[in-house]
Amino acid sequence: MQAAPIQRLIASLSKLPGIGRKTAQRLAYFIIKSDGDYAYELSDAIAEAKKNVKYCSVCGNISDRDPCEYCSAPSRDQSVICVVQDSKDIIAIERTKEFKGLYHVLGGAISPMEGIGPDDLRIPQLMARLNSAVTEVILATNLNVEGETTAMYVARMIKPLGIKTTRIARGIPAGADLEYTDEATLSNALEGRRVID
Amino acid sequence: MQAAPIQRLIASLSKLPGIGRKTAQRLAYFIIKSDGDYAYELSDAIAEAKKNVKYCSVCGNISDRDPCEYCSAPSRDQSVICVVQDSKDIIAIERTKEFKGLYHVLGGAISPMEGIGPDDLRIPQLMARLNSAVTEVILATNLNVEGETTAMYVARMIKPLGIKTTRIARGIPAGADLEYTDEATLSNALEGRRVID
Repeated sequence: MQAAPIQRLIASLSKLPGIGRKTAQRLAYFIIKSDGDYAYELSDAIAEAKKNVKYCSVCGNISDRDPCEYCSAPSRDQSVICVVQDSKDIIAIERTKEFKGLYHVLGGAISPMEGIGPDDLRIPQLMARLNSAVTEVILATNLNVEGETTAMYVARMIKPLGIKTTRIARGIPAGADLEYTDEATLSNALEGRRVID
Repeated sequence: MQAAPIQRLIASLSKLPGIGRKTAQRLAYFIIKSDGDYAYELSDAIAEAKKNVKYCSVCGNISDRDPCEYCSAPSRDQSVICVVQDSKDIIAIERTKEFKGLYHVLGGAISPMEGIGPDDLRIPQLMARLNSAVTEVILATNLNVEGETTAMYVARMIKPLGIKTTRIARGIPAGADLEYTDEATLSNALEGRRVID
């Protein structure tokens, strides 16, 4: 009995990741009942983002320009490339304000379970970028099986080129208690221990 | 450094209830990267719903027509009006397939904490509907302090008219264990006990 435009909106919102039917309904009613122009503002923001956002032909990041803001910034260190699975990972790394080099987005990780092989990732595009100006490739894929497999695969591909290849550190997260840390993380942390100067 | 259209979309999505910045970011990237026309479909669904959905002048429900689908359906029992706080509550009641009468949406509940008094609710509109054809008003506001206060207030307003006014039952939810039921619910359940024929 629910009105057709409401049903359509709920159906459309339900397709978003992590949004079930009940949440979609709550969001739909919020949007419809919102005062002023919020609904149109949201509608426009979606259409505009979809229309104006493109993939960077160099690194595969999503951006409103090509090459993207990182690839086109002369201030970024051109000698280091940080390899990530997803554009979102770039945002996370940028928040640390620690890294000033370039990025390369693979677009996922090797996962036999999901049928994703090396050929489905932007690995050839990475290899094509590895000229003599590049002195280090940091592998910042996820710390799970898929991410580790991908990092190992990419490292093996780069090895013949003689470029330094590093992997982000495994260890105990900031603020964590040893008592509640799982064995795998704890043994990684022990193995990766560093000398205090 | 994030591209402006992405930032705008994230900011707009963050205004949705229960959607924090991180979730908004996840949704934004999903929308942008979605294949085909999903982003435009969602954008259109929002704008269309906002444009075409109106408030029913009789019951206050949101619908694509006025009077709404319930108020205009001759098959609904015109003698019973179920009073709810919100349009969403109608959907919940409809799912039970138990109720075939009409609805009245108050648009909230009396809440001194939030500065919502009886005058902010659609109570006068309810009173105006209570003609001789109405034989029962079911008060289906929430079972919390605000909902109970509102139910009591509306019941007192209706009393002089001599129309039967009922309150939905307090009790233990289906599937619940007594062991884990709070005292207030349990004492409501005891108080509301019914004879088994």
